[in-house]
Amino acid sequence: MKKSNRKVKASIIIIGNEILSGRTQDVNVVYLSKWLNELGVTVSEVRIIPDIERAIIKTVNELRKNCKYIFTTGGIGPTHDDITSKSIAKAFKIPYGYHDEAYKILENYYSPGKFNKGRKKMAKLPIKASLIFNPSSAAPGFVVNNVFCLPGVPSILRSMLGGIKDRIVGGKKVLSQTINLSTVESEISISLEKVQQKFKKVEIGSYPFFKQGKIGVSIVIRSSEKKQIDQCYRQIISFIKKKKIKVIVR
Amino acid sequence: MKKSNRKVKASIIIIGNEILSGRTQDVNVVYLSKWLNELGVTVSEVRIIPDIERAIIKTVNELRKNCKYIFTTGGIGPTHDDITSKSIAKAFKIPYGYHDEAYKILENYYSPGKFNKGRKKMAKLPIKASLIFNPSSAAPGFVVNNVFCLPGVPSILRSMLGGIKDRIVGGKKVLSQTINLSTVESEISISLEKVQQKFKKVEIGSYPFFKQGKIGVSIVIRSSEKKQIDQCYRQIISFIKKKKIKVIVR
Repeated sequence: MKKSNRKVKASIIIIGNEILSGRTQDVNVVYLSKWLNELGVTVSEVRIIPDIERAIIKTVNELRKNCKYIFTTGGIGPTHDDITSKSIAKAFKIPYGYHDEAYKILENYYSPGKFNKGRKKMAKLPIKASLIFNPSSAAPGFVVNNVFCLPGVPSILRSMLGGIKDRIVGGKKVLSQTINLSTVESEISISLEKVQQKFKKVEIGSYPFFKQGKIGVSIVIRSSEKKQIDQCYRQIISFIKKKKIKVIVR
Repeated sequence: MKKSNRKVKASIIIIGNEILSGRTQDVNVVYLSKWLNELGVTVSEVRIIPDIERAIIKTVNELRKNCKYIFTTGGIGPTHDDITSKSIAKAFKIPYGYHDEAYKILENYYSPGKFNKGRKKMAKLPIKASLIFNPSSAAPGFVVNNVFCLPGVPSILRSMLGGIKDRIVGGKKVLSQTINLSTVESEISISLEKVQQKFKKVEIGSYPFFKQGKIGVSIVIRSSEKKQIDQCYRQIISFIKKKKIKVIVR
């Protein structure tokens, strides 16, 4: 498929009180962002919101207009605090109930007599949603328009991404190059800004690091144009040499 | 100070392309949320946004109306991609420039001749902002109205929180109790929902875990009323016993 030159944007909505309370460290943003970047999709915003229906509806409806893709994580399990499926149906004003295909998948997965009321809840979805298959624990995710709903458990989420890869049409992949320097940001900020001004379409980030007693700065050059990155890289290396700053391997 | 019975809410805005691209794992949300919870403040939303001025202005202005406190992290360093201070000034439509007190702090911190143009940028703030002192690396954070601006580097951020603790007036602290069970969510979801329906003001969360080959479910009961938690706890333990589910120590 021909890649578009336009930047393709996505937003991620992390649904869960356990993330907001600090009980659980989210790790899905990093994983999804990297995975999307490989497909030529840039994450433009992330929101972490509570398990509250009106918050989910409002956030989904606000973001889905501005982005090509929305990913939600969390809230599609069997317990009372899992309200993502119902909220998405309400956000789109579409019917919610037993999803035939999801029901069959779960019915087959559980031993006879074990497909109880709690488990049946996981087959309740926007009834016309298309499913995202779950090779780990059967309960499917689902897609409504441009909104992809995934579970919150990282290992299960990761196992399901293979099944939706073909449904994501990204733009040009953003490439990046990192230069690690044995210096502090304030020694290079003015020179770096001058380079940034010359390369308006390249994104130059500067990130201090403190690791194992060493301090340093990582400069990250990002662009979908390899040539632009190379030119930018050479100009940075040139001022780094003049300043006699050491490049370090991390 | 008398604690209000009303829930006191805060939002966190994480500013930084490196978080959105998946390059850097955010750890400030967990830390800030726990710290705020100790002070009786509940985080109601988190947004992760890029280093783009209009995104910062829009997000700050949207959230500051709905929450008692806003915390931003990132973007207050010396490089060209650090645009939080200027953006906050624009959001509040207040003057931005050298902040007398911040300038003096930084001038004193650096050896003579070392207070270069890059470092001086860190003294450029909304000029009437009140400062948040930085015992790690001098460059201050700042407060404008209800917006607290902190750095992104976790160790520096943490070192600065002591200085603002007295400025946060929370409500009653949310207490929590966790029960870890050797079961799966779908075995307990119906019984748990019944308990939730009886205790409408208690927040009962259910979180599956997979660790070291064991699977289980953590039930987390949260409320500012210890008595409510205890009553709720007893009812959960009661149905757990009936179902012969083992409570496990993690």
